[in-house]
Amino acid sequence: MTQTMTRIALASRPEGKPGPENFRLETLPLPTPGPGEFLARVVWLSLDPYMRGRMSAAKSYAKPVEVGATMEGGAVAQVITSNTPAFAPGDYVVGNFGWASHAVSTGEGVQKIDPDAAPLSTALGVLGMPGLTAWVGLNDIAGAKSGETIVVSAATGAVGSLVGQLARAKGMRTIGIAGGADKCAYATAELGYDVCLDHHAADTRTLSQQIAEAAPTGVDVYFENTGGKPLEAVLPRMNTHGRIALCGMIAWYSGIEGAPPAPAVWGAILRQRLRVQGFIIFDHFNRAPAFRAEVAPLVKSGAIRYRETVAEGLAQAPAAFLSLLEGGNFGKQLVRIAPARA
Amino acid sequence: MTQTMTRIALASRPEGKPGPENFRLETLPLPTPGPGEFLARVVWLSLDPYMRGRMSAAKSYAKPVEVGATMEGGAVAQVITSNTPAFAPGDYVVGNFGWASHAVSTGEGVQKIDPDAAPLSTALGVLGMPGLTAWVGLNDIAGAKSGETIVVSAATGAVGSLVGQLARAKGMRTIGIAGGADKCAYATAELGYDVCLDHHAADTRTLSQQIAEAAPTGVDVYFENTGGKPLEAVLPRMNTHGRIALCGMIAWYSGIEGAPPAPAVWGAILRQRLRVQGFIIFDHFNRAPAFRAEVAPLVKSGAIRYRETVAEGLAQAPAAFLSLLEGGNFGKQLVRIAPARA
Repeated sequence: MTQTMTRIALASRPEGKPGPENFRLETLPLPTPGPGEFLARVVWLSLDPYMRGRMSAAKSYAKPVEVGATMEGGAVAQVITSNTPAFAPGDYVVGNFGWASHAVSTGEGVQKIDPDAAPLSTALGVLGMPGLTAWVGLNDIAGAKSGETIVVSAATGAVGSLVGQLARAKGMRTIGIAGGADKCAYATAELGYDVCLDHHAADTRTLSQQIAEAAPTGVDVYFENTGGKPLEAVLPRMNTHGRIALCGMIAWYSGIEGAPPAPAVWGAILRQRLRVQGFIIFDHFNRAPAFRAEVAPLVKSGAIRYRETVAEGLAQAPAAFLSLLEGGNFGKQLVRIAPARA
Repeated sequence: MTQTMTRIALASRPEGKPGPENFRLETLPLPTPGPGEFLARVVWLSLDPYMRGRMSAAKSYAKPVEVGATMEGGAVAQVITSNTPAFAPGDYVVGNFGWASHAVSTGEGVQKIDPDAAPLSTALGVLGMPGLTAWVGLNDIAGAKSGETIVVSAATGAVGSLVGQLARAKGMRTIGIAGGADKCAYATAELGYDVCLDHHAADTRTLSQQIAEAAPTGVDVYFENTGGKPLEAVLPRMNTHGRIALCGMIAWYSGIEGAPPAPAVWGAILRQRLRVQGFIIFDHFNRAPAFRAEVAPLVKSGAIRYRETVAEGLAQAPAAFLSLLEGGNFGKQLVRIAPARA
């Protein structure tokens, strides 16, 4: 067993766009679990856009990471030593273990996972929080129905890729928005979107005109992951009584993309009598059993596709995270911290 | 009987802020009702912020008024001659008779009113569309509950003044925002708001700080009539899972007031998991019986107060409307077109 561990600490708060200087790789003594605690080695770390919010001191739905503290993050880990009967050495678990090689935990908020049921990493992606986010947003928040038309921004991301597939399985017309020809090809060929619009592509038509052509009967549901240009483009296309499930606004997390004026947003909501609902998956964990019952068999059978972008080693986590914020990932962004089998 | 009638036509579409030049007073021959129609003389004309939208050609929830056509508007009228058994000479009616001294109608969308049950003008205000708007917005759209805190912008307007009183009757903490010391004094002394914040007053605290002090447990419901500064001020004060009933945005109808950036609006909805619902009263006429059953007795008993600003004569309608857009009205804005008794 190693006698040290490594972690990524928040070195400083970003002003605007974060950079490598905001992170610091540190080596620390390996902690010893206290009574009722276990020590685990991290196998997979999940990188997610919400982490950008935790880097800032501004009011958010969760406390910010303190400067000097370990960056937070969900991870799959394997128990090494345990002082609690609930977890045994060798158990695979998923929980908020942070950007680190090892973690000590009381087991609060930690679930055991079966390493044979599906690849371990799916517990962080299609069968984890991003998957639950997609399923709750589509069903509980947007109230999406068969025969309706949905637009999904960040259509090939960890959340979007499942939204599109679940919507299609429901019998909806599915229009994805993604950045890049490769992502759009994947969206239609693999994920089954009816149309994918590449907002990076040169086109004589505006993105809003492209949506209008792709959605001849208008847009009933917009699954919002980005803000920015996709939002501006879809708003005039929303049908009366349309719904917007507001899940993320990655285009704006670092203030790097333009925005429609607030009166245009507010005016569309009013004139088209839209319902806009912000949601955070932490409020909806009670829906996890229903989600897994429906989606796990589809993942196992191969009916639901997913893709992962893997960075190798904890030291690569900051660069992979910064790339994620710029749309450099393709599907779920992971960091392989250690091999699955010790 | 006069052989001519007068009307206000839309002379031109405004660019930005409308002015008197956009309206034209015209004299026309008095029309003759055809088979199944009646002719009525207008008694009271209602002026409402939504009319600003009808003056523009931009997409809205209703067709714009054509240039040269009569300005639309709800009115109380008295039937003069009738070719339909549904309406008899002498009947008082409420319907969309427009900015005119007389109107011919098939009776579609027209209701008879009892001139002895309540003052005729209340059919355009506290017991008419503004009242129904307040009641539907508070109950059906915002799902407001006893013990919660509500902020109402344009708190003494035709809609807001009833929202505040209904919310107070429900057992909510009520905070109004209005422009001017006289309106705020009326809001607390007559309408029963717990607090009224005057956004015209000089104050060392920002409006948002004033809301924070007035709402020590945060804001659960925001009844949005204005957009602009009140929206910007209330957003950071909204509680998790708060609701915004988006009824109007008068501050922005002519583009005259600043706005928070869209990412700030979107970010608050996401972080605080707000539900924002735009609504237009035309979708909710089926709730009118339940509304009247609850509110008419309260108006009759004097438990619900209301105030009217009356302009005298059709020729004053444009000036009164322009004043309404600037917040110059105090309560429901009406134009007295003719005496109630012919």
